[in-house]
Amino acid sequence: MRLSSNHEVVIGSREQDKAAESCTTCYATVTKLGLPCTVSGLSNQDAVDRSDIVILAIPFRHIEPTLASLTGLDDKIVVSPINPIEKKEYFIYTPPSEGSAALLVKKLLPPRTRVCSAFNTVAANKWKALAEELDFAVPVCGDDPGAKAVVMDLVRSIPGVKAYDAGPLAVSSMVECLTPLLLNIARFNKMRDVGIQFR
Amino acid sequence: MRLSSNHEVVIGSREQDKAAESCTTCYATVTKLGLPCTVSGLSNQDAVDRSDIVILAIPFRHIEPTLASLTGLDDKIVVSPINPIEKKEYFIYTPPSEGSAALLVKKLLPPRTRVCSAFNTVAANKWKALAEELDFAVPVCGDDPGAKAVVMDLVRSIPGVKAYDAGPLAVSSMVECLTPLLLNIARFNKMRDVGIQFR
Repeated sequence: MRLSSNHEVVIGSREQDKAAESCTTCYATVTKLGLPCTVSGLSNQDAVDRSDIVILAIPFRHIEPTLASLTGLDDKIVVSPINPIEKKEYFIYTPPSEGSAALLVKKLLPPRTRVCSAFNTVAANKWKALAEELDFAVPVCGDDPGAKAVVMDLVRSIPGVKAYDAGPLAVSSMVECLTPLLLNIARFNKMRDVGIQFR
Repeated sequence: MRLSSNHEVVIGSREQDKAAESCTTCYATVTKLGLPCTVSGLSNQDAVDRSDIVILAIPFRHIEPTLASLTGLDDKIVVSPINPIEKKEYFIYTPPSEGSAALLVKKLLPPRTRVCSAFNTVAANKWKALAEELDFAVPVCGDDPGAKAVVMDLVRSIPGVKAYDAGPLAVSSMVECLTPLLLNIARFNKMRDVGIQFR
């Protein structure tokens, strides 16, 4: 929703009907606020084929089957906003043996694919509450300086969101584990949709 | 420095001369701003014996020898602000096999000692720059609700610092690894003494 006023957004889904539905909701919500909106709903493969930047907005457990089902990611910038977490009495970070979700994504894709992590720490409810102004930091990790610059510009294109270079993909675990920390902060301090700001 | 206007602070050191020196600097700096200051410099053991709350402001590698040299911590609240980190081309989190510095401290102390982690993420330079107003979050972890409440009150007694309950000691790794993240954010974005705020 927040990208569709400044970018051509393609929503992909395993079920094209679901993509079309998300697309309709996005268009209605954004245009209702008088903002422009360019969004289309396609299959995951069609979404990949049409895009320069692919944001893997999927749960951790879907990484392997989703990436195995797709081709043509070689020359793309792929963004992982994925946080491997589990909920017990509190939230814990449960990274795979690769060290982080972003490193798993990197391993499963061709070496040429330029993988970054970003958008890990902003709560879905905050993205969706379009009438609310955001005031959040988004740390970005990645090994390809050009791809990282593109992703940081993408982050900055959203009003109220600041992009920060958080280092190479090797330290994306530190960014991913912010999310269970923020969920615990929300839980134990009776807050909602907690995000971070650096200062 | 920032605690000495509202609390009786005892600085401990292996060398009592160093404690006395820190004490003199603290007193001069705080009273110069017209603030009250109660601080004394003692040996580590004397500092423990005089205190209700012991803040282990020591490097990670000193945890084992320091705790082995001390007695009388059984009934105290012990606060770990310690972050096990290493610097390569960037900062990484290097926790011990216990999972975090706080859990190592817990393991090395008698079961009755009430261990919390706190003060992990505020840069030393910010604490020291007394004329600067702070605007930071301090997450607090711990398993003893009473001790955690005392530590959160201690945090809140410092103007401009907000205390957040970040959950049990088991998740203190998530708080400790904020520090290398913040050091990387500072390094890669040409910032200094970066801290966090939740929002």
